[in-house]
Amino acid sequence: MTDPKSQTDAGANSLWGGRFAAGPSAIMQRINASIGFDKALWRQDIAGSKAHAAMLARQGIIGESDRDAILAGLDQVAQEIAEGRFQFSEDLEDIHMNVESRLREIIGEPAGRLHTARSRNDQVATDFKLWVRDALDRLDGDLKALQAALIDRAEEHAGTIMPGFTHLQTAQPVTFGHHLLAYVEMLGRDRSRALDARARLNECPLGSAALAGTPYPIDREMTAWALGFDRPTANSLDAVSDRDFALEYLSLASICATHLSRLAEEVVLWCTTQFRFVRLTDAFTTGSSIMPQKRNPDAAELVRAKAGRVIGALNGLLVVMKGLPLAYSKDMQEDKEPVFQADETLALCLAATTGMVRDLTADPDAMRRAVEAGFPTATDLADWLVRSLGLPFREAHHVTGRIVKLAEERGVGLSALPLEAMRTVHPAITEDVFGVLTLEASVASRTSFGGTAPDRVREAVAAARERFL
Amino acid sequence: MTDPKSQTDAGANSLWGGRFAAGPSAIMQRINASIGFDKALWRQDIAGSKAHAAMLARQGIIGESDRDAILAGLDQVAQEIAEGRFQFSEDLEDIHMNVESRLREIIGEPAGRLHTARSRNDQVATDFKLWVRDALDRLDGDLKALQAALIDRAEEHAGTIMPGFTHLQTAQPVTFGHHLLAYVEMLGRDRSRALDARARLNECPLGSAALAGTPYPIDREMTAWALGFDRPTANSLDAVSDRDFALEYLSLASICATHLSRLAEEVVLWCTTQFRFVRLTDAFTTGSSIMPQKRNPDAAELVRAKAGRVIGALNGLLVVMKGLPLAYSKDMQEDKEPVFQADETLALCLAATTGMVRDLTADPDAMRRAVEAGFPTATDLADWLVRSLGLPFREAHHVTGRIVKLAEERGVGLSALPLEAMRTVHPAITEDVFGVLTLEASVASRTSFGGTAPDRVREAVAAARERFL
Amino acid sequence: MTDPKSQTDAGANSLWGGRFAAGPSAIMQRINASIGFDKALWRQDIAGSKAHAAMLARQGIIGESDRDAILAGLDQVAQEIAEGRFQFSEDLEDIHMNVESRLREIIGEPAGRLHTARSRNDQVATDFKLWVRDALDRLDGDLKALQAALIDRAEEHAGTIMPGFTHLQTAQPVTFGHHLLAYVEMLGRDRSRALDARARLNECPLGSAALAGTPYPIDREMTAWALGFDRPTANSLDAVSDRDFALEYLSLASICATHLSRLAEEVVLWCTTQFRFVRLTDAFTTGSSIMPQKRNPDAAELVRAKAGRVIGALNGLLVVMKGLPLAYSKDMQEDKEPVFQADETLALCLAATTGMVRDLTADPDAMRRAVEAGFPTATDLADWLVRSLGLPFREAHHVTGRIVKLAEERGVGLSALPLEAMRTVHPAITEDVFGVLTLEASVASRTSFGGTAPDRVREAVAAARERFL
Amino acid sequence: MTDPKSQTDAGANSLWGGRFAAGPSAIMQRINASIGFDKALWRQDIAGSKAHAAMLARQGIIGESDRDAILAGLDQVAQEIAEGRFQFSEDLEDIHMNVESRLREIIGEPAGRLHTARSRNDQVATDFKLWVRDALDRLDGDLKALQAALIDRAEEHAGTIMPGFTHLQTAQPVTFGHHLLAYVEMLGRDRSRALDARARLNECPLGSAALAGTPYPIDREMTAWALGFDRPTANSLDAVSDRDFALEYLSLASICATHLSRLAEEVVLWCTTQFRFVRLTDAFTTGSSIMPQKRNPDAAELVRAKAGRVIGALNGLLVVMKGLPLAYSKDMQEDKEPVFQADETLALCLAATTGMVRDLTADPDAMRRAVEAGFPTATDLADWLVRSLGLPFREAHHVTGRIVKLAEERGVGLSALPLEAMRTVHPAITEDVFGVLTLEASVASRTSFGGTAPDRVREAVAAARERFL
Repeated sequence: MTDPKSQTDAGANSLWGGRFAAGPSAIMQRINASIGFDKALWRQDIAGSKAHAAMLARQGIIGESDRDAILAGLDQVAQEIAEGRFQFSEDLEDIHMNVESRLREIIGEPAGRLHTARSRNDQVATDFKLWVRDALDRLDGDLKALQAALIDRAEEHAGTIMPGFTHLQTAQPVTFGHHLLAYVEMLGRDRSRALDARARLNECPLGSAALAGTPYPIDREMTAWALGFDRPTANSLDAVSDRDFALEYLSLASICATHLSRLAEEVVLWCTTQFRFVRLTDAFTTGSSIMPQKRNPDAAELVRAKAGRVIGALNGLLVVMKGLPLAYSKDMQEDKEPVFQADETLALCLAATTGMVRDLTADPDAMRRAVEAGFPTATDLADWLVRSLGLPFREAHHVTGRIVKLAEERGVGLSALPLEAMRTVHPAITEDVFGVLTLEASVASRTSFGGTAPDRVREAVAAARERFL
Repeated sequence: MTDPKSQTDAGANSLWGGRFAAGPSAIMQRINASIGFDKALWRQDIAGSKAHAAMLARQGIIGESDRDAILAGLDQVAQEIAEGRFQFSEDLEDIHMNVESRLREIIGEPAGRLHTARSRNDQVATDFKLWVRDALDRLDGDLKALQAALIDRAEEHAGTIMPGFTHLQTAQPVTFGHHLLAYVEMLGRDRSRALDARARLNECPLGSAALAGTPYPIDREMTAWALGFDRPTANSLDAVSDRDFALEYLSLASICATHLSRLAEEVVLWCTTQFRFVRLTDAFTTGSSIMPQKRNPDAAELVRAKAGRVIGALNGLLVVMKGLPLAYSKDMQEDKEPVFQADETLALCLAATTGMVRDLTADPDAMRRAVEAGFPTATDLADWLVRSLGLPFREAHHVTGRIVKLAEERGVGLSALPLEAMRTVHPAITEDVFGVLTLEASVASRTSFGGTAPDRVREAVAAARERFL
Repeated sequence: MTDPKSQTDAGANSLWGGRFAAGPSAIMQRINASIGFDKALWRQDIAGSKAHAAMLARQGIIGESDRDAILAGLDQVAQEIAEGRFQFSEDLEDIHMNVESRLREIIGEPAGRLHTARSRNDQVATDFKLWVRDALDRLDGDLKALQAALIDRAEEHAGTIMPGFTHLQTAQPVTFGHHLLAYVEMLGRDRSRALDARARLNECPLGSAALAGTPYPIDREMTAWALGFDRPTANSLDAVSDRDFALEYLSLASICATHLSRLAEEVVLWCTTQFRFVRLTDAFTTGSSIMPQKRNPDAAELVRAKAGRVIGALNGLLVVMKGLPLAYSKDMQEDKEPVFQADETLALCLAATTGMVRDLTADPDAMRRAVEAGFPTATDLADWLVRSLGLPFREAHHVTGRIVKLAEERGVGLSALPLEAMRTVHPAITEDVFGVLTLEASVASRTSFGGTAPDRVREAVAAARERFL
Repeated sequence: MTDPKSQTDAGANSLWGGRFAAGPSAIMQRINASIGFDKALWRQDIAGSKAHAAMLARQGIIGESDRDAILAGLDQVAQEIAEGRFQFSEDLEDIHMNVESRLREIIGEPAGRLHTARSRNDQVATDFKLWVRDALDRLDGDLKALQAALIDRAEEHAGTIMPGFTHLQTAQPVTFGHHLLAYVEMLGRDRSRALDARARLNECPLGSAALAGTPYPIDREMTAWALGFDRPTANSLDAVSDRDFALEYLSLASICATHLSRLAEEVVLWCTTQFRFVRLTDAFTTGSSIMPQKRNPDAAELVRAKAGRVIGALNGLLVVMKGLPLAYSKDMQEDKEPVFQADETLALCLAATTGMVRDLTADPDAMRRAVEAGFPTATDLADWLVRSLGLPFREAHHVTGRIVKLAEERGVGLSALPLEAMRTVHPAITEDVFGVLTLEASVASRTSFGGTAPDRVREAVAAARERFL
């Protein structure tokens, strides 16, 4: 993008004052031209034009030789762009005019027939929808790759015991595999949202023309079908005014970025000297040349931060769209950069997260030491009192509290507290209680559907493979 | 909600300084207690507890008489709340403890068995999901009511010609019915998003317990089914950490609010002396006691503004969730107020918009006067040149430009320019051209699917009834 | 606020459909009335009216007996509101009409003279500015109280060594006092922003009337002075259209909330079993009845989360104001609730944070154990090599890295590594090096202005008392 | 910036899946490197290094010849960058390493002494503060240029009567000059905010080193002074953790963008066929080749929209900073792009707005026709009744309402209604009343300070020149 400050000095004494010495037309060109970013739509623009030309010819609106010239010319333009040989021009404002202008250079007069029965309004809506659809497909692939990485690691650690936290305080033991599968669920919902968004946007605006439809005998079903849409849009005014698909994309991207930021926060914590639950290699950390033990989890920090960018992009586009009258307003040109930036940001975050998940080495000993601090099986004791002695849950809770206090006073864990001591609190407690007081027993007992018992986790791994991969 | 400034004076000389003279426990209670807002969950909380109790009994975890006492007691609590006789207590912190505490007063010891095999973490997730599900259902009904109003008015005005704007400049004539149907499409997508969100959230967290599942032989399918969920959630850590459903609700509510703000902006414009396209009655305007002609479209302005509230709520919750480690953190208590406020705001905006759509009187004469200014059928002329004379579109565009300039110089509209004058620009033009230059001909010609031709609009009205009502 | 869903059932079969069965006027009243929230402005509204009446009388616009009646009547209204005896009416829409209507009941006809030479537009702008000014003053007091708490604790811990983190990895030892003073700086900037905002908003809109000024010979200087403003606003259209003061308040509140969220995040971390740097009492934590060691830092979590609310409020109001034409639009009624909620939220967060800072007990042993892990004085060694041996910084860095590696291989800290070993890396190292390798030496050496040397911290404590308290 | 999708195909079958086939190190480099955007800091980085080197030498920390080599080398680097000859390298991560690495190539070993007693943490904070300070200075100049344009046009139109709107309904006549001056006030507050932000940020972080200060005998006053700062920062931890200056910049930029969006909305409205209050030339509109009367106000629409971008940038950075523990975290690298983009956006919007203000031609006839519709002097009549007949304001209001109704029934304006007719409503009305019922009389009468009377507007123009230019 051009630097608006580049002419500072020249402008200092000018009529205009301020930073834009070049005069009104230069300012207008700078604020108006979109080619700097909408060239990203070139594939979609050419695909749309080809579908349109083919339809025009089949409907007899243009001749077959014109169609053939147009299709060949567009293929040549595509090749030039793909090979980096295309000269984008800011004078031609946007990708549509850049492509059409070059087409005219190549094929001459027939190029003038391509824009029959369409306008830039339905053209850009079509291009951008196609682009977002592609972005959703790429996103689905990236999410699936991260799910695959998480599922692999979850299987490996189906039985690795770690603290399950609430309020970042140890609550109950869980397994690391179980923890990782929680993210597989989140990402599964992200994919589901992407799929729904894709289905919803998949109506073709092409043929809505400027805003009112067209008198030409076009076949909107044909272009819709050719471009992979399910059907044409039902209302031409809506078709050129609608940016729901961009807002919905940014919404789901924001929720997804929030998921990644949660995992990133955990990675940052787990990498501290205090936690040491995992270790990342040099591939995802930066070091210090004088403190070799220092491994800064830069990638995780950046993933955590970049959620802000995606949320900001969503926010910005909601602001743009709010209160806009129908149909097309130029304000809507501000739709693309937030989406492009969010897509790039999210792709980078997903790649980095997948990399970190594959890269990390868990430290089961550190996890176990952490979970042993405190009385992580207190809930198991309470549950045993309910199930074995028939105490109401709230009473069992109180009994447990007194037993834990006893253990705390003696400086031992629950499984090391003698039965006699427990019986001073509740005389009916039996030897069987020790069967639930170890970490292994605790996690193994949580066999309810969705629970952390290693067997359950292994089943969940298999089910996740089935559902998602 | 209590007013934190109410103790200002008392606190002025205190140890604490600042505004909270009452000391730490008072501050903690104020920041911690959620009963002030989460009492809105009472129906859902009681429904969840009843399903849980029934399941516990069928699985033999509690006895049948306990179950019967619990169910009857909960019904009594529900009745007390519904009748406004229930004393909510801030000491009891939240809706869950308020209900359970009252249950214990009513039925005594069996109340202590209700909380077996669950925790507040899965309980609140279940309650809140049920609430959001209800909100989505209400939203769908409200959206449908607005669609119905729009479709009725669209049918009435299927042939009423108004300016179709781009950049708020007249571009081509469209019909008012066609314009209104654009909003029916937007609202249709809103309903579709709500439906998808509903399906996605419809997994039951109950039985995930604190975070790890439970060792009791519970039947999560049974509670899920009893509460209308499709299935239990697959991962207990995710189940208590997930607020995607709230974020997704706020996302779709924000997009919907943006649609309403667009229509509201149009109503404000249409009500100006300059446009006069529509008139609202006193029911939706406020007047001035000294300027009787003044009708301030307050309701429309408020609908336009309130989009800001909904967007702010979405934004706020994304900020809350960003970077939170698993599983439950108290931060997540900040999830409810934004959702409750967005729901109330959106419901009000939808009701007001439905009211305005039913209330407004269109002024076809003002619309026609507006569309006649300028050369709204210039595009029709260009299209005629392409279709009848075979000119390439771009050339037809230039010819049209010159003819319009001629008409402008003579101070007449296109349909009043003599054929001879047109022929000075392009000799092949024939008498037939006048068949496309009237407003009626223009709109009637736009028969492409989704176009503004009155017959198309009437078909679209019928189709919209079929699709949405 | 009324519950828009309360009439659901009644509305089900109605003409209106949707949730508002009560018909258009009920909807309009609900969406339009602001008394539900703007009654918070009552003090400011009455103060403004009293100043206005006094000025009208002095300028001869109303008589002295009318003035006296108005002033006495307004005092009575104020007393009724303060004592909770005032009946607010939604029919009277807003605080201005509620007060004026009651005034008429009390004093009769002279009440009708109060509104001379003003309108609700300048009245509400004045009221709201006064309210925000009060809020800024309260905020300043709350910030000062938190600074005082931090400075006290900083003095106490001027020499308590803890890890200084970058990337949440131990980088260098710092003192806890130094760490706490960092927040004193942040809050100092918050106060400075509040002060600037106060000065900037302190121009009085009263007398701008509806939007154009007034033909009465009013004295705007007099009302401005009476209400504590520095001067009247310079442009009447701007005066009634401006909500910068609310946006600026929300901006600085958002930045302040972000500061509090950072400290809250640290408190949550410091309270984990893994860190244990501080301990909070029951006053700011919640416990578990079965896990007595568990202290959930709920207050800190809520402070961390509530930043989202304040940011959402800022965001929402920016959305409302964006694109509004001059002068007053009803959209601007949506300005108050975000500000009121942000003020309440921020006051609560500040009180809770001040409470936590006073409540917390630091654990210097845990802090020291944490800082000893790793080689926190590696930088000190490098600096010694530069200063004592004259090595370029980048070379000193490399030498240090090799020495640290040696220490790591031997499993000892730097201060326990024999001189001979160091000399194998660089022969010029002398016994003196050990003078910089202890934690105490490290922190004591950082005497640059703003550095962590305990003496510097004590000076900074004294300076902070001078600057802020 | 590199395109993360460029390797899509290659990655399809890879181990990694997803879009980043290049393996972990490539992902890490992409997410980690900031040189793509932070090269914008080059001037500030070199200025900071020069000040640091000069100080190190004066304090005897490095030798004078080293200093001279460093200063000369840095000048050469600066020249290479300015002339576009510098090769930025992504391997060297950021601007700091790029500059230092090139310095080493140029001057060899002394380059290694430059980084003594500083770290990248205080270096980047210094660079970025300097950059934001420059941005604030540029912003002030741009705001002043726009004020100058507005003041010129306001003077020209001090007496041009237009409708003053509330709710976009004509309320009272005002002058176009008065309307334009409202924006001069808004921009004046923007400048005031920028000035305050500049003063607040103007403390120098340099010498805070990594986070704890430094043991070298540095002189922070000297570097602060050399770089134009008022003083060094008071706390080293805060100095490297603080991004308040970026948040405050984005806050004030958002408020400013909101002001511009309001004016832009008005320009869009004023350019409609319905309003026609102003006309823009081709310099700030785009046309249609077939509808010559169509002038799309693209620049205004884009200015209106771009507020969304700036608000999104503010929002994004608040999200990033929320909840970050001290001191430096890599998340903070996400601070620059939002600020750079907001600066570029705002500069462009200001230039375009200044251009439009200078470019526009007002149409006084259209404005007058608009204001004559309705009864814009009804308030003047009411005020006359109060002032001349001594009626209480509320009663005068009712009398006016009845007179206006009379005029409406007869289809005449107020000034054309016979005295007799008025007297049927209130017998004491005299001939004098007609002195206030014309538009000219109405605006001329509003002589209260800040009012719309042309003489007042001319005074306000003069005062604004004094205050702002």
